[in-house]
Amino acid sequence: MTAYQQLEARLRRLGVLDGVGQVLHWDRAVMMPPGGATSRADQLAELSLLQHEMITAPDMGDLLAAADQEGGALSDWQSANLREMRRLWHHATAVPGDLVSAMSHANSTCEMLWRTARERDDFAAVVPALEDVVNLVRQMAQAKADALGLSPYDALLDAYDPGMRRAEIDGIFSELRLFLPDLIGRVIDRQAAGPALLPVTGKTTVAAQRALGERIMTALGFDTDFGRLDVSHHPFSSGVPDDVRITTRYKADAFTESLMGVIHETGHALYERGLPADWRWQPVGVARGMTMHESQSLLMEMQACRSPAFVAFAAPIMRETFGGAGPSWETDNLLRLYHKVARSLIRVEADEVTYPAHILLRYDLESAMVAGDLRVADLPGAWRDGLHALLGVDVSDDKDGCMQDIHWYGGSFGYFPTYTLGAMAAAQLFHAASASDPGVMAGIGRGNFAPLLTWLRAHVHSKGSLLSTNELLASATGAPLGAAAFRAHVERRYLG
Amino acid sequence: MTAYQQLEARLRRLGVLDGVGQVLHWDRAVMMPPGGATSRADQLAELSLLQHEMITAPDMGDLLAAADQEGGALSDWQSANLREMRRLWHHATAVPGDLVSAMSHANSTCEMLWRTARERDDFAAVVPALEDVVNLVRQMAQAKADALGLSPYDALLDAYDPGMRRAEIDGIFSELRLFLPDLIGRVIDRQAAGPALLPVTGKTTVAAQRALGERIMTALGFDTDFGRLDVSHHPFSSGVPDDVRITTRYKADAFTESLMGVIHETGHALYERGLPADWRWQPVGVARGMTMHESQSLLMEMQACRSPAFVAFAAPIMRETFGGAGPSWETDNLLRLYHKVARSLIRVEADEVTYPAHILLRYDLESAMVAGDLRVADLPGAWRDGLHALLGVDVSDDKDGCMQDIHWYGGSFGYFPTYTLGAMAAAQLFHAASASDPGVMAGIGRGNFAPLLTWLRAHVHSKGSLLSTNELLASATGAPLGAAAFRAHVERRYLG
Repeated sequence: MTAYQQLEARLRRLGVLDGVGQVLHWDRAVMMPPGGATSRADQLAELSLLQHEMITAPDMGDLLAAADQEGGALSDWQSANLREMRRLWHHATAVPGDLVSAMSHANSTCEMLWRTARERDDFAAVVPALEDVVNLVRQMAQAKADALGLSPYDALLDAYDPGMRRAEIDGIFSELRLFLPDLIGRVIDRQAAGPALLPVTGKTTVAAQRALGERIMTALGFDTDFGRLDVSHHPFSSGVPDDVRITTRYKADAFTESLMGVIHETGHALYERGLPADWRWQPVGVARGMTMHESQSLLMEMQACRSPAFVAFAAPIMRETFGGAGPSWETDNLLRLYHKVARSLIRVEADEVTYPAHILLRYDLESAMVAGDLRVADLPGAWRDGLHALLGVDVSDDKDGCMQDIHWYGGSFGYFPTYTLGAMAAAQLFHAASASDPGVMAGIGRGNFAPLLTWLRAHVHSKGSLLSTNELLASATGAPLGAAAFRAHVERRYLG
Repeated sequence: MTAYQQLEARLRRLGVLDGVGQVLHWDRAVMMPPGGATSRADQLAELSLLQHEMITAPDMGDLLAAADQEGGALSDWQSANLREMRRLWHHATAVPGDLVSAMSHANSTCEMLWRTARERDDFAAVVPALEDVVNLVRQMAQAKADALGLSPYDALLDAYDPGMRRAEIDGIFSELRLFLPDLIGRVIDRQAAGPALLPVTGKTTVAAQRALGERIMTALGFDTDFGRLDVSHHPFSSGVPDDVRITTRYKADAFTESLMGVIHETGHALYERGLPADWRWQPVGVARGMTMHESQSLLMEMQACRSPAFVAFAAPIMRETFGGAGPSWETDNLLRLYHKVARSLIRVEADEVTYPAHILLRYDLESAMVAGDLRVADLPGAWRDGLHALLGVDVSDDKDGCMQDIHWYGGSFGYFPTYTLGAMAAAQLFHAASASDPGVMAGIGRGNFAPLLTWLRAHVHSKGSLLSTNELLASATGAPLGAAAFRAHVERRYLG
């Protein structure tokens, strides 16, 4: 075997174990009884340690160097695979095994504590565990920063969106900081001056919401022979390409949330399903980072399924499912419902216009925590001040404030920006797809997502991690990541 | 660290990975969509390989030898732990890694095929996959036989019930072959001559059956903070001691089956929950083989919960749950239902009197397959002939014949005898518990299982794998495993 072939064999084992971790995480959030928390933490820690041992095996450096020497014989995909292997190796060798294990345990413990503490609005109960998490994240960030020659925050970010840097984000986020407050104000004024949103009420039982969600996700292309839809506190997407697990949550009085949750996670699931099967379990075969992943969910949720064409298609289905009748269930009013913009507390319930403000808050706060400039105990106050400054919203309690998101409690720092970067990418990609094939929008208006999915399969999903985020966007849309398409989309939809 | 301490650290990792495998197996049977089969097979194969690599690490032999030298300093539990480590090591080193991996793949593939082929009564569809499984099992059995100095079948058996041998089984099974046919005949004649069983019908919906099962399993001591009850094709028990997963299946017209299924699996679950927490993830901390495991489920199902005292307690609860009224729902008739003995096709639906005949059939057939004396293609015919000879029952189709059980299709050979050995052990243990504390039967009559559970915790569960099956039975009941207590129980209950 060549050095490259030996590396493929090893990385395959790592990739398979990634899938095992997906099952364990999914089960923990969806199925596991509370008593299983400690055992599950042991299992996840062991899995992390095994993967760490594999990628940091003493001869990995030599194998990577030897594979480089074989470079001329490698295809583009193999070269990209080797590049991704090296990236994983750099990230892993930077962090000692006992730190990896300690983080896995601390993250599991803190996340489980958060689940109950959040219900009781008891931030104090989770402070020591979150302090452990932040402390270990900072140690990891510094270790990776030293090894990769990056800043600690960039080192964290690189794990979620390879090659993405703080400087790039700051450019895009600065643009948002400039135009977003004014844009939000104008949209809200415009909506206040327009026809009032009529309350949309009907038999929106959980069972009916589930039936609608299943019907729409099937229309989008989700195949239940290759995945499941379940319920969890916080909707997420997990699993492997042939067994994608997505979740949503149901509130009897908020069917739009569960439906759009299902559509959002279906976007993630379709990306996973469309990854190149020839490169299964290899680093180049996985999704190209969290920005691209979020672009696929937001493209479905925000771009495609809140479009007037789709809402017109879905309106009669909604009326039928929920027994809705009268003016409030007409397409125009449903569009007002799906386009409603408001300053609000909860990120996952936020509309696409105010959503970036929620991310700017989290980006500022996690940057400060990673830098050591914000203590965990001071997080609730900083959250209140920050949300007021960025969005003019007053936070009522920690439950709906700094405890609303799982990310930090599960050890994810550097992840939040990818949501808004993903929104930018979604606008770019959807514009490009619609422009290249008139069948895309026409199909969406008939509930036929095949033309859109065909374009996405060809230009995004099948690429795996062959290209960087910016290369992928440039090849698919003609331009690297920026805020222009997003701004144009918002102005067209809400102020046009 | 001493050699023993190094071994504990390594075996802990193996034990944790066992728990991971439990989650993957449970999920496959309960949650996984069909498309996930190949990925799951990859995951299980990788897990098996990792465990195999750990237990067969080049220095394991030296470590075990060094730990032996430290022997004087070890406690009884540590010595037993070391003994179990050596047993695992012997089993593992006998089998090459590529064979382990091939078996995991073949078992996963065959089991998934069986799920659909069984529904279609299509034995031919699963023949090639089962041939692969049998071929690999025979290779493994021979390899272990050579290494352990056992016969191939004993080598398989030793993995399910350490120390149990074919000679011991043959002694007990010969006794059964002698008295069972006559006993079955006398019981059936006696029941035919007694009052007729009135059909028990009511609102036995799946929801009502589930509610009853949950109520009874809670009374038995199952804590849903530390476990789950779900649905699968074939009921089973899985998970780890703090997160025990049991399943049942519901048929609208057969509430006794689902209830007794839940009680049976609860017996397994209580054993797992009661294992010594101080020895979690260590070989000595796990259940003492499948015979003891089955004894705990059958003790609950057959001994405790089909007793007149328990049925009298449960009868009003059943009437309430299913809206049952009239003579058919009186305790006497329900007892006739729960004590009904009949020659039948399906093992898992069989009564405790005819059940051993089903096991004798499987024991004979799998012995022949392992010996190479029975080809997979000839299995349906051998099954028909065997069941007719042993029980006088004619097999209608393969679905309810040789395809009814998952075991062989999942690669489990040498497992079946432990069901009937477990029934023998259950009778011995229940007799000993009842004799030592009058509160045991008195409690069962009030739906209070605490006295029984206290006895089992002290004499069985908390022992983990400290003793062999026979040592454990001798210490708890005063005698090694035999058929006498079972025979006395059956004669007392059915002919007394």
